[in-house]
Amino acid sequence: MNYQRLLDEIALEVNPLLGQGKVASYIPALAEIDPYSFGMAVVTIDGKVFTVGQATTPFSTQSISKVFNLVLAFSTLGEAIWRRVGKEPSGNAFNSLLQLEYENGIPRNPFINAGAIVLADMLCEHFSSADDALIGFVRKLANNPTIGYDQRVATSEKETGNRNYALGYLMKSFGNIRMPIETVMDFYFKQCSIAMSCVDLARAFLMLANHGEVPYSGERILTMSQAKRISSLMLTSGLYNEAGDFAFRVGLPAKSGVGGGIAAIIPQLLSVVVWSPELNGYGNSLAGIQALELFTTKSGISIF
Amino acid sequence: MNYQRLLDEIALEVNPLLGQGKVASYIPALAEIDPYSFGMAVVTIDGKVFTVGQATTPFSTQSISKVFNLVLAFSTLGEAIWRRVGKEPSGNAFNSLLQLEYENGIPRNPFINAGAIVLADMLCEHFSSADDALIGFVRKLANNPTIGYDQRVATSEKETGNRNYALGYLMKSFGNIRMPIETVMDFYFKQCSIAMSCVDLARAFLMLANHGEVPYSGERILTMSQAKRISSLMLTSGLYNEAGDFAFRVGLPAKSGVGGGIAAIIPQLLSVVVWSPELNGYGNSLAGIQALELFTTKSGISIF
Amino acid sequence: MNYQRLLDEIALEVNPLLGQGKVASYIPALAEIDPYSFGMAVVTIDGKVFTVGQATTPFSTQSISKVFNLVLAFSTLGEAIWRRVGKEPSGNAFNSLLQLEYENGIPRNPFINAGAIVLADMLCEHFSSADDALIGFVRKLANNPTIGYDQRVATSEKETGNRNYALGYLMKSFGNIRMPIETVMDFYFKQCSIAMSCVDLARAFLMLANHGEVPYSGERILTMSQAKRISSLMLTSGLYNEAGDFAFRVGLPAKSGVGGGIAAIIPQLLSVVVWSPELNGYGNSLAGIQALELFTTKSGISIF
Amino acid sequence: MNYQRLLDEIALEVNPLLGQGKVASYIPALAEIDPYSFGMAVVTIDGKVFTVGQATTPFSTQSISKVFNLVLAFSTLGEAIWRRVGKEPSGNAFNSLLQLEYENGIPRNPFINAGAIVLADMLCEHFSSADDALIGFVRKLANNPTIGYDQRVATSEKETGNRNYALGYLMKSFGNIRMPIETVMDFYFKQCSIAMSCVDLARAFLMLANHGEVPYSGERILTMSQAKRISSLMLTSGLYNEAGDFAFRVGLPAKSGVGGGIAAIIPQLLSVVVWSPELNGYGNSLAGIQALELFTTKSGISIF
Repeated sequence: MNYQRLLDEIALEVNPLLGQGKVASYIPALAEIDPYSFGMAVVTIDGKVFTVGQATTPFSTQSISKVFNLVLAFSTLGEAIWRRVGKEPSGNAFNSLLQLEYENGIPRNPFINAGAIVLADMLCEHFSSADDALIGFVRKLANNPTIGYDQRVATSEKETGNRNYALGYLMKSFGNIRMPIETVMDFYFKQCSIAMSCVDLARAFLMLANHGEVPYSGERILTMSQAKRISSLMLTSGLYNEAGDFAFRVGLPAKSGVGGGIAAIIPQLLSVVVWSPELNGYGNSLAGIQALELFTTKSGISIF
Repeated sequence: MNYQRLLDEIALEVNPLLGQGKVASYIPALAEIDPYSFGMAVVTIDGKVFTVGQATTPFSTQSISKVFNLVLAFSTLGEAIWRRVGKEPSGNAFNSLLQLEYENGIPRNPFINAGAIVLADMLCEHFSSADDALIGFVRKLANNPTIGYDQRVATSEKETGNRNYALGYLMKSFGNIRMPIETVMDFYFKQCSIAMSCVDLARAFLMLANHGEVPYSGERILTMSQAKRISSLMLTSGLYNEAGDFAFRVGLPAKSGVGGGIAAIIPQLLSVVVWSPELNGYGNSLAGIQALELFTTKSGISIF
Repeated sequence: MNYQRLLDEIALEVNPLLGQGKVASYIPALAEIDPYSFGMAVVTIDGKVFTVGQATTPFSTQSISKVFNLVLAFSTLGEAIWRRVGKEPSGNAFNSLLQLEYENGIPRNPFINAGAIVLADMLCEHFSSADDALIGFVRKLANNPTIGYDQRVATSEKETGNRNYALGYLMKSFGNIRMPIETVMDFYFKQCSIAMSCVDLARAFLMLANHGEVPYSGERILTMSQAKRISSLMLTSGLYNEAGDFAFRVGLPAKSGVGGGIAAIIPQLLSVVVWSPELNGYGNSLAGIQALELFTTKSGISIF
Repeated sequence: MNYQRLLDEIALEVNPLLGQGKVASYIPALAEIDPYSFGMAVVTIDGKVFTVGQATTPFSTQSISKVFNLVLAFSTLGEAIWRRVGKEPSGNAFNSLLQLEYENGIPRNPFINAGAIVLADMLCEHFSSADDALIGFVRKLANNPTIGYDQRVATSEKETGNRNYALGYLMKSFGNIRMPIETVMDFYFKQCSIAMSCVDLARAFLMLANHGEVPYSGERILTMSQAKRISSLMLTSGLYNEAGDFAFRVGLPAKSGVGGGIAAIIPQLLSVVVWSPELNGYGNSLAGIQALELFTTKSGISIF
């Protein structure tokens, strides 16, 4: 497969979509991004890197980093995490309070905000510094020691994060948050603020495509079974309330963020990450989804 | 892969689970089934058939037949069907009225009862006899002209089907049911009553594993893209409110029914069907899920 | 109190509101009504009658007749009715399915559609002809043997009544409807179709103001306690989702209908009924509510 | 009416109920109360006071003080308050988050927790010290300068108040809380902690029975219309999810608290307050409700 030509074609074809979505505007750091930004990267398990556009420009990973949260917690705490967070698609807006009330404070899955907050609580309880543990983990996965939190983003998230505080307090009322709310929320907002490029993300997600082993270092992070299970969760719940449609059209395990990034994997083959900050009505990258659909259609690669 | 040895091992290993679930008892025809029944069949794309236990005994397919409903509608009416039914996981009990009220009578996906009723309405509108069209279609897919409706089951379903009538009338109030309710419901209840064996179902589902073409006849039913999309829907929404957990543990596109059957596919390779009438708390076959998890674990076959 | 002058003043003052609401249009028989119709009647316990406008023109009582349903059931079956219907305000749209699902098919109160359907079921079970029993009862209360059902309205209600059928079937699935759905719904739709004038309604409601005794005949229908309790229910739940606001502004036990009527009582004093077919956004008579607010403000009469 | 004999009879008749409910136990200060406590007081508009039992023992008013919150806000800020809080019964558990999500952060009424938090926010914004303003206001209404906050209760409420924080943050996310959450919640929890006796409460509520004027001082707090409107709200929404049943059985405007108090009024006549700390399943005083039902039944006094 000539991935370079594929990426070049895709960049051309999605170009007319730029300008048709809406950049997230609830915090200044996101609102200021050039809406016409576009980048895409493919990294294969055997170590080849292909890029097009702004593939090495760091952007705000936002909800994509929920996958790092989950991988770190799963690899550290094992099956016990599933007593406090579910594995089912949510079937509702990505930060709804309804389901929590009826399911006793147990979030449906780790990729809705409530689920990520519970995982943040677990990491805060386990590590003396969850901040340091997470960023060190991400740097190792991506093989890039310069990756860091964007403190300006974290601060803005916190200032506009009333609904996330509501989720945290509601779960605390059910006993599913154990550390002080401020500690948990500060870490949660920092986790959202990690800045990474398409290439960084593709490198970091490659471990999942490689069934749990970091390809370039040989370090095993997850068992094969655990890696497959996280892939399965990404497929059923990785794109907010559009997960079913994305699985239907694209059919890859993937995770999106309101910063406009989407990271996807093709098990045992490669990872592919796209960034285009304009979003569709579901909060997912408009051009990004189209780029990934073209990627599977043109390459004929599919898990189904 | 020695599929016969695999099936034999699985049958032995799940045997202790028999007696630990609960046979569906809301209609006599289901309640009377021997709870210790167990059968399993694998059919490969190149035509080999492997079985263990009661693999040729017909049982009530129940919700599994929603896949036939969907395939027939999709192949006949094309993309237009998605204007009246969604593709997202439901995140609620499989026959909830809540979501319908908030989403204007559009069911979340074709595998919840409301979605199957809308598809039944489409088929009733399109065919002069939807009954004949569907059973003929299923016979063709399964290459078995003796497959039929179980009128006793259909009648019982109708007698206890008040909640399904409620779903139908609610959708009619939103204009999403067009034919007379009685016509639609009669067809819906008949569709649930189709009796097939594990081998029948495995043969019929093989078309999906084979990307839309019936392997033994070469007839194309769906485009490759359509077949993959139905597989994706089965993965995200095929097992009621346990779909996420099943995808997590087993990772195969599958559809279950309260008759105790589960039909799954491994794209481009095979279909595998299990039947054990005792159900778990989610309404899925208790031993059946375990059998399929053993199948993927032991064979190492996975889509992820 | 000079009630005649009061009614005359009110009629003048609400006149500018005519033309500002919307006549119910879901069935032809209601849509055809002259939107500028207006009538009002006061009947005192000592037998005086005061009217203004079209106070003797029969109109479709619609939900107002739910009070007759309730009174007949309460006086016939006693406290047992409260095992199958609640006494709490609904806090939701007047025909919502949500609450029924969470409260096992027990409607919140007798004045939401679901509650009236359950009462209809009780009356169908108790009387050999519920139709005859109800209309005879209403004629007796209103002292007018010419009152009848409007079959054209009943037929139209049935044709557009899909949501009410959904309510009926949902409650049947919980076992809270015992008679055949068609029997119950036919009676329910007939009950909605009773045609009465303002004077008819005022006469019929006077029994409630008179603590359960029909003033002109001396016949006791309800005990004093029962009469007060129905008044209390009218106050908390008589005006759909606007009940709290109406209690706040007007402060009288009352029941409205989408035909544009509102019947209210002042305990131990009088009944007052207004009719103006244009509705506000809550489905209550726009000018009617204003007329009743003027009635209490100008007269200084209040239960608080 | 011989109110003294009435109270004596009631105290005797409800005595067997003591021991059959459950004292609120979510905070130590409430859990430690003697469950067999019982007191009752009547104060008439012409200044007579009647008591039985521990009618002068201060107890935790809890939600009863929401009425003072509301009266202070209504008398200070006028009709503007209704843009941020509704007047409709809630139809749900008294602190549910569901309705807030669907109604854009506007609580249904001032007597559910969310509504009282919004009023607390208004008072915090208006007064330089809302704490001082409220307690001064309550002392004036009750004519008792020794009434105060119970700081131990306030602190405990705050420590267990996660769900109330969730309500506050959710409303803040909709823009319906304007002051800092900590400021608002501290005041809200203090407001819940006001300690008053039956006689104190009866004196303070007499202003509402007297149509807005404090009887002993002649000071007008509310217009007659405003006073009636608050009475109406108490009738439709004063007893959590049991308001309809209480209106049905007792038929008086009233407000209850989990401390076991219930304050009620009979317009233009008297106020009556009962205290018995054991609660029924709805969080209302078990013996208290019975005592008030006996009061209306035996006296024959009713607003209906």
